[in-house]
Amino acid sequence: MLINGKPYQTIWPDENDKGTIKYINQLYLPFRFVVDELHTSEDTFNAIYEMKLRGAPLIGVTAAFGIYLAALEAKGTANPREYIISFAHKLLKVRPTAVNLEMAINLQIEAMMILKDPADLINITLKTSINLMEEEKERCRQIGLHGLPIIEKIALNKPGQSVNILTHCNAGWLACIDYGTATAPIYLAHDKGIPVHVWVDETRPRNQGSRLTAWELGQHGVPYTIIVDNAGGHLMQSGMVDIVIVGSDRTTLTGYVANKIGTYLKALSAVDNSIPFYAAVPSSSIDPKIRNPLQGIPIEERDDSEVRYIEGWSGREIQKVQIMSSESPVSNYGFDITPPRLITGLITERGICAASEQGLFSLFPEKF
Amino acid sequence: MLINGKPYQTIWPDENDKGTIKYINQLYLPFRFVVDELHTSEDTFNAIYEMKLRGAPLIGVTAAFGIYLAALEAKGTANPREYIISFAHKLLKVRPTAVNLEMAINLQIEAMMILKDPADLINITLKTSINLMEEEKERCRQIGLHGLPIIEKIALNKPGQSVNILTHCNAGWLACIDYGTATAPIYLAHDKGIPVHVWVDETRPRNQGSRLTAWELGQHGVPYTIIVDNAGGHLMQSGMVDIVIVGSDRTTLTGYVANKIGTYLKALSAVDNSIPFYAAVPSSSIDPKIRNPLQGIPIEERDDSEVRYIEGWSGREIQKVQIMSSESPVSNYGFDITPPRLITGLITERGICAASEQGLFSLFPEKF
Repeated sequence: MLINGKPYQTIWPDENDKGTIKYINQLYLPFRFVVDELHTSEDTFNAIYEMKLRGAPLIGVTAAFGIYLAALEAKGTANPREYIISFAHKLLKVRPTAVNLEMAINLQIEAMMILKDPADLINITLKTSINLMEEEKERCRQIGLHGLPIIEKIALNKPGQSVNILTHCNAGWLACIDYGTATAPIYLAHDKGIPVHVWVDETRPRNQGSRLTAWELGQHGVPYTIIVDNAGGHLMQSGMVDIVIVGSDRTTLTGYVANKIGTYLKALSAVDNSIPFYAAVPSSSIDPKIRNPLQGIPIEERDDSEVRYIEGWSGREIQKVQIMSSESPVSNYGFDITPPRLITGLITERGICAASEQGLFSLFPEKF
Repeated sequence: MLINGKPYQTIWPDENDKGTIKYINQLYLPFRFVVDELHTSEDTFNAIYEMKLRGAPLIGVTAAFGIYLAALEAKGTANPREYIISFAHKLLKVRPTAVNLEMAINLQIEAMMILKDPADLINITLKTSINLMEEEKERCRQIGLHGLPIIEKIALNKPGQSVNILTHCNAGWLACIDYGTATAPIYLAHDKGIPVHVWVDETRPRNQGSRLTAWELGQHGVPYTIIVDNAGGHLMQSGMVDIVIVGSDRTTLTGYVANKIGTYLKALSAVDNSIPFYAAVPSSSIDPKIRNPLQGIPIEERDDSEVRYIEGWSGREIQKVQIMSSESPVSNYGFDITPPRLITGLITERGICAASEQGLFSLFPEKF
């Protein structure tokens, strides 16, 4: 999508410098727009760990490029496959909840395994990375095309007024390669001239909503308003929300959606106020192994410093301040699970389906 | 309750200096413990507006002292009653959601109206303030006594384990004069040796949970953990919450509870996970005039700077940083309304009742 009027992706291989992957460093947004580079597999691990890159689809593509960088490093070592696989094992643990990471790594390993000549490792891992990147873009665009009629239908019922869409966290194009998942139908609606307005949940503790979603919507010219995570219920009670669209970090075959902590609360409120609640689910987020989410999905517990400190703009620089006592114990779960009974539908790249085994099977039989 | 081992109230008239009201300035907590003074009615208005003092019962008592300070200022003017009433009208609008402010002001006006001699205005307004202050303390203590058996019962069913209580915002003793409302049963349980642990919602945008509730629980030695407002749903889904207790800024005769924005979301989650959800309601928060809450309760919309900026500790001082782009539009509703169907019961100073007209009538017939 557009930044200062120029089209960007979140990550891309440098055309002029083999072995350099460029990406938008999200840690500086919205205060500064910075493009950084990955040169080593270790760079990739750290960039994902430090959330310079985040969002399920983007994490997957970044991991794929990380394997490619590992292949470059492995060249000339006694056992290049072993070097790469050892890195893959390490990378697998960096963010446990999003399934895309695991899938991207598996894609790379499978591609490597059928190779006869280890000399081709570099080419095949680069090709796999680029294919995945292009697939993710297309998946998001398709999600947009399938979600668009939902927004169009609401717009038809309130002529002259904006469609109010609430979203949580950043399932925008910054979380993907382009378009976004939850935001794809919004961008397409906006570009088509349908008046939309987005309620952007701040999304504590890392404020991906107020920092990233707000920024990317603003850059593209989509009207929005930031709210604290506590506010959605009141807005829904007061008729100020027409539809909720969120992303999914991992979707089970039975239609459970693991997404940023707090998503479940918005789903409860949407149902309580008869407001449609959709999750935008690229098939890369569907985990074919998990049926019982409460046993199967690992809920990442992150460092308490994410809650204890906050970054802001001092007027001259990005500054970190401590927003509670040093002595206060803090807990920091990163995700929660929204059960299918609260979900109106899943917007996927192959269409919209019920959040159920039957619904997902109808669109993705190969996952079963 | 205790601060550094010494018992305090949140507000008290200075014994040695007539016309000076001392109070704990909450804006510096938890980073610094500061006792400030009110000398004029204008001081009172500003202190409430700037939330140096906040919490429904405390706002009421502070307003009462504000009228007393206005009475001191009115002495010798042509029409002292008029001076006081003019200030009362101004004060009435400073925080519209909590009913206590209005009630405290009405108490003072009524007391003044039956006076024969305007010279007694000062004495009567001081007396009314002190009576209200003592009544609020006793109301909180009684709420604690009535709520205690609920916690004791849960404790009996999980011997050797802590009772996990989730609370939102600060309905602690800092919001009152002493004991608190939602916290009163917790303090009494803790003091009785029942193991309790409190999940403290951060409570964006002003972080009264992580700044105030955490601090006061810690000072009194009650175990707690701070969580972001998004986390409660996951904790409840995972069996980590036994009971939710919140305060109420305004309770309708039909049992609707207006409380800090986000309360409604926690009530939805509690019900969805069969966890008891109680509101601690001092009768001073019951509004006898309102039946239909969605029409009757004004939901305060506060300045967007509360969301846009945050205060923290830089290591040397309290510092304000901007946590989103200057260009981002922000909305900041202060309260939401939890309907009776989501409320297990109201804990009042006269006992526990259903959140319903019948329930409230059984305990407070005089309100009807």
